[in-house]
Amino acid sequence: MHIRVINPNTTQAMTDAIGAAARAVASPGTRITASQPDSGPVSIESHFDEAVSVIGVIEEVLAGEREGTDAYVIACFGDPGLYAARELTRAPVIGIAEAAFHMAGLISTRFSIVTTLPRTMIIAERLLDSYGFSHNCRRIHAADIPVLELKDNPDLALQLIIEECLRAKHEDNIGAIVLGCGGMADLTPQITEAVGLPIIEGVTAAIKLAEALVGLGLGSSKYGDLAFPPAKPFIGRFKSYSNLKSE
Amino acid sequence: MHIRVINPNTTQAMTDAIGAAARAVASPGTRITASQPDSGPVSIESHFDEAVSVIGVIEEVLAGEREGTDAYVIACFGDPGLYAARELTRAPVIGIAEAAFHMAGLISTRFSIVTTLPRTMIIAERLLDSYGFSHNCRRIHAADIPVLELKDNPDLALQLIIEECLRAKHEDNIGAIVLGCGGMADLTPQITEAVGLPIIEGVTAAIKLAEALVGLGLGSSKYGDLAFPPAKPFIGRFKSYSNLKSE
Amino acid sequence: MHIRVINPNTTQAMTDAIGAAARAVASPGTRITASQPDSGPVSIESHFDEAVSVIGVIEEVLAGEREGTDAYVIACFGDPGLYAARELTRAPVIGIAEAAFHMAGLISTRFSIVTTLPRTMIIAERLLDSYGFSHNCRRIHAADIPVLELKDNPDLALQLIIEECLRAKHEDNIGAIVLGCGGMADLTPQITEAVGLPIIEGVTAAIKLAEALVGLGLGSSKYGDLAFPPAKPFIGRFKSYSNLKSE
Amino acid sequence: MHIRVINPNTTQAMTDAIGAAARAVASPGTRITASQPDSGPVSIESHFDEAVSVIGVIEEVLAGEREGTDAYVIACFGDPGLYAARELTRAPVIGIAEAAFHMAGLISTRFSIVTTLPRTMIIAERLLDSYGFSHNCRRIHAADIPVLELKDNPDLALQLIIEECLRAKHEDNIGAIVLGCGGMADLTPQITEAVGLPIIEGVTAAIKLAEALVGLGLGSSKYGDLAFPPAKPFIGRFKSYSNLKSE
Amino acid sequence: MHIRVINPNTTQAMTDAIGAAARAVASPGTRITASQPDSGPVSIESHFDEAVSVIGVIEEVLAGEREGTDAYVIACFGDPGLYAARELTRAPVIGIAEAAFHMAGLISTRFSIVTTLPRTMIIAERLLDSYGFSHNCRRIHAADIPVLELKDNPDLALQLIIEECLRAKHEDNIGAIVLGCGGMADLTPQITEAVGLPIIEGVTAAIKLAEALVGLGLGSSKYGDLAFPPAKPFIGRFKSYSNLKSE
Amino acid sequence: MHIRVINPNTTQAMTDAIGAAARAVASPGTRITASQPDSGPVSIESHFDEAVSVIGVIEEVLAGEREGTDAYVIACFGDPGLYAARELTRAPVIGIAEAAFHMAGLISTRFSIVTTLPRTMIIAERLLDSYGFSHNCRRIHAADIPVLELKDNPDLALQLIIEECLRAKHEDNIGAIVLGCGGMADLTPQITEAVGLPIIEGVTAAIKLAEALVGLGLGSSKYGDLAFPPAKPFIGRFKSYSNLKSE
Repeated sequence: MHIRVINPNTTQAMTDAIGAAARAVASPGTRITASQPDSGPVSIESHFDEAVSVIGVIEEVLAGEREGTDAYVIACFGDPGLYAARELTRAPVIGIAEAAFHMAGLISTRFSIVTTLPRTMIIAERLLDSYGFSHNCRRIHAADIPVLELKDNPDLALQLIIEECLRAKHEDNIGAIVLGCGGMADLTPQITEAVGLPIIEGVTAAIKLAEALVGLGLGSSKYGDLAFPPAKPFIGRFKSYSNLKSE
Repeated sequence: MHIRVINPNTTQAMTDAIGAAARAVASPGTRITASQPDSGPVSIESHFDEAVSVIGVIEEVLAGEREGTDAYVIACFGDPGLYAARELTRAPVIGIAEAAFHMAGLISTRFSIVTTLPRTMIIAERLLDSYGFSHNCRRIHAADIPVLELKDNPDLALQLIIEECLRAKHEDNIGAIVLGCGGMADLTPQITEAVGLPIIEGVTAAIKLAEALVGLGLGSSKYGDLAFPPAKPFIGRFKSYSNLKSE
Repeated sequence: MHIRVINPNTTQAMTDAIGAAARAVASPGTRITASQPDSGPVSIESHFDEAVSVIGVIEEVLAGEREGTDAYVIACFGDPGLYAARELTRAPVIGIAEAAFHMAGLISTRFSIVTTLPRTMIIAERLLDSYGFSHNCRRIHAADIPVLELKDNPDLALQLIIEECLRAKHEDNIGAIVLGCGGMADLTPQITEAVGLPIIEGVTAAIKLAEALVGLGLGSSKYGDLAFPPAKPFIGRFKSYSNLKSE
Repeated sequence: MHIRVINPNTTQAMTDAIGAAARAVASPGTRITASQPDSGPVSIESHFDEAVSVIGVIEEVLAGEREGTDAYVIACFGDPGLYAARELTRAPVIGIAEAAFHMAGLISTRFSIVTTLPRTMIIAERLLDSYGFSHNCRRIHAADIPVLELKDNPDLALQLIIEECLRAKHEDNIGAIVLGCGGMADLTPQITEAVGLPIIEGVTAAIKLAEALVGLGLGSSKYGDLAFPPAKPFIGRFKSYSNLKSE
Repeated sequence: MHIRVINPNTTQAMTDAIGAAARAVASPGTRITASQPDSGPVSIESHFDEAVSVIGVIEEVLAGEREGTDAYVIACFGDPGLYAARELTRAPVIGIAEAAFHMAGLISTRFSIVTTLPRTMIIAERLLDSYGFSHNCRRIHAADIPVLELKDNPDLALQLIIEECLRAKHEDNIGAIVLGCGGMADLTPQITEAVGLPIIEGVTAAIKLAEALVGLGLGSSKYGDLAFPPAKPFIGRFKSYSNLKSE
Repeated sequence: MHIRVINPNTTQAMTDAIGAAARAVASPGTRITASQPDSGPVSIESHFDEAVSVIGVIEEVLAGEREGTDAYVIACFGDPGLYAARELTRAPVIGIAEAAFHMAGLISTRFSIVTTLPRTMIIAERLLDSYGFSHNCRRIHAADIPVLELKDNPDLALQLIIEECLRAKHEDNIGAIVLGCGGMADLTPQITEAVGLPIIEGVTAAIKLAEALVGLGLGSSKYGDLAFPPAKPFIGRFKSYSNLKSE
């Protein structure tokens, strides 16, 4: 089984950390490719960053389709390009935010989210609403760390995240915490140990969900809303998307 | 990894079929025990049947805890006793209805459910609301088959289910169908082939979710709402539940 | 008119207090029987306790049916076994949580709940969602009292409940308070006097709703979802439930 | 106990029928006064009619307060003036739509509504949303009868209502039907007999809820949102509302 | 284009301020008439005040219809009589609460409301629910000012409103603030300058929405729910509403 | 006032039609620029098309910012890139779907949508949920016309749209219809005349909302969630987005 984990930003250190976290939980027969686009923002901290990153996600899925891929993971907590990606493949495509929400709902009655910058909270909030998990989430916390600080200043970042997780634990009447950034993937063991309740991280959660779906023979439905997009002309720098073959 | 699949009713043929379906999707290192209570209804088709079956589920979880079990699956589409079971163990506990809903949401935008008797539709409807999936489900269909007909009259049952699935496919604007009864577990391949869009069946979905959670080191949160129940006296025929040790 | 008030736990002192509270509000022609199961937990403080108590509720309803009963009240704030009970009888069956929510909505725009232990808050929260009252409830408070302390240590319990009610009154922007435990039934007058806004208690509310429904000639609908359960075999210790006659 | 049933329209025949229906279910010690405003529309079939009728409801409550009244019922299915009325009194005030919704929810899992004209359906729909009962109601039917036809042409009206109720029974997957007009109050026995599932009518339901609240010593909360209105000048034809004493 | 701005209370100073605010934003070709009923409360601070004010709104719309009016604005934050008014005319009718909510949703992801007295918060809360904006509003604040203080004691009122707006800005994680009272219309520029984030005021918002609808050739739909009310007799002091011609 | 109407697809005939429709409703002092990206799909009929089109929307907003623009309209019914665009400017940015929903809610109680292809229905459905208008929309219809047929085969397209609008009018219990595609902008007058109830079209609606916001001095909030994006490096073909100055 070959799973392609797409880091939608363009920072190699994050791609590496995401890949390592993915491999740490992958089953014996699962091969992980962690990739990142050759174009786009170095981190995703706004609707604008996210919108641009979607093109990178699409490129990575198209690349994956050429190689043969059994499942995709989109490793940014806003799940950018999720439905577009699902249209482009028969394989399952899992976003790390949805993966974390699903898993959290299976082991706790209510959870909180700890994310990076305050302005990304609205993205998590919208995803909770859109996916149907808003009643499972008590509160969204921001540790007020720029995403790249997770790699540039890991000790401080870890400390701030743990502090915010402990605040969530003691104030929110919850049973689990969801980490709200792909860049936290490799910190999960330390956070779990320090905080003392289940910590759900999306990259690892998504790998296991992807394996689960492949194991069931299930993938993105090609009947109805998620069928391959109608082939058509694209112009300019997106000309290569013209008349994509759908099979 | 040892997963205990609990059939909450007391019909051996259904336990066997559920166990076979579970084993068919389990990963190489996963051992499946399919069990059923020694007391309870032969099928679950009402709130009353379901309420009685919960005691059987509890007994099976307590038995599992004595033996050492890594995860539990509750193999009835009403997810009877789900939260009680989660309180009794550190292992993950997955209901087949929730499992199917989660998986369906990952591969389609909207799904329909095909269940057995009309009176079980309200149970599915309440679970959709309770879990947050009601906006993902377009419609609940009943094939109007008593549960045990799935085993006693399998050819007719299969035909009626396929007919109802085709109705859902053509009328409901959906991308996937969820089978609404554990007794349909072994019919999934035939239904999938006949219907031609993804068919999600809960027993198999739950096995893979259970494997996924165990693979992530996650289990029922023991912090907060799902902590072990306060030890206390029980009297009468439930005396053995008195002062359960929580660890 | 004969109303059977079922205390789902097995503590006689609570049954007595519940019966007394019921009789205090019953209309002249109403006879109250307060009963408790011969098997089950001494108090209900977890999903597990609640799940076991459902068998007791069923037994009491079946006993009531043999005697002739005009209405049933389930006197535990989680409304355990409510839908199963309704299937078993033509009489109305009222849970005390739903009764309190209905009454509170008729005299105030928003209310808060004061319950016993923090872990029972999730049960109240789920009932609010399920019944459609979540937008009426501002907040759920736990006075952090084990249920049996209400009888074993009544003065301290009363004080803690009143303190929490006053906190709700002053902080929550509400017009009424719902008491979240059947064991508080006999404390209502004192709490009302101390707190100074309407206090709704479920046992008394349920008695009056039961009388109201009987007065209207209405009972659990036997058309559709709540029809008598399909008769079928039960095995083992639940064998006596086999082939229950539905009329 | 003295309950004032306010017919918000100005048609004496409807007031009489409502009073008769109320008396038919009232408890022995309950005295019913059925009244109607001296000003307003002869029937309520639009938002405009309803808005004007609110003044009549207010006048009747103020009259009731002068006389001493234990509870009020607003006998129009749009519950006109409900919150204003509750502000003006310590007594409970019950609308017949909310009364019917509450009662229907206690005896069935899902109900449908059968009302008069199509344009009143939006009023029922908004009330369901506002009160939190929209998930309990499967469908709203209009029998397409002007309100006064219920009195002017009772045989035809009855026939059309029964036909629509039977349609609801057979198509809607419900357990009960709510009658959506105060003018149907006296037809309930005939409809119940013809349709064969529980028929909930709001006037009678409201009388029993009013008795229930009075029996519990509960009335419109005077703490917070429903406290007596701030005394102030009114001018012109509403001058008499100036500086209403609140106690 | 002629827009009639109806102040539903009877305080001339408020009508004047509302008219001035309206004129300040009206387009060159727009003529503003600011009017108030000759009967009703001097301010609207309760459901009772609001219910009475609806008659004034109706009178003003009927007057407007006699004169020829292109659009109506109801300048009280509870939007009293909105649907009744829409039934009476082909012109658009805009409530200032809905206008403010719509505009706030177009320039921010989340907003808070700052209103006058605490008891009016429930009115805003119900409108948010009814219009579908409750998820856009983080919190409703009351500056605890009686409405008429806005005119009688403008400096203190302004200071209290600004303080509450700053509290909302710093605590609520919002991008805009909605002013919750028509009487604040003329204070908007000063509040905006002092608070430093977008302040949305309903009278001005409604004027622009009314102009927008007229510019599109759109008005209150006369097909379906908002068609002219069925003509019928009214008696007593509302006799003049009998048999209103609908065109 | 200068409004930039961005057609997110790359078909000049649609841009021209959108521009003409916009100019037809613009106020005297308003200048309309209708533009389209130099890269992207010729029509938008899938999540994939929409995701790619977002880059075009961003480019057009950045171009608009260089020129000085008072407001932006995104003229595709999926509102692609709406929040990203709002982050990039102080000017208001209006999507045509949200514009149509807002306007429809002001003149009717319930509306239906008539769109092009069935697979775009899910996009409209998600927007209704996300914006809070799902309870206002009765049903979404697809006329089953590829977007470009609106220009290539206008007579047939018009006929099919009118047929579907008439179906909505007669079956859906609505007061207005929303046209679900920017390409229908110039057909509105003919559809309105043929269908006979208010037809709301998003391009024209958005122009008037944009004028309204500019007239109020309101624009995309730069406080909180929609503040300018944090400046940062972008690499590859998006390098020009690096370190965008935010003012």
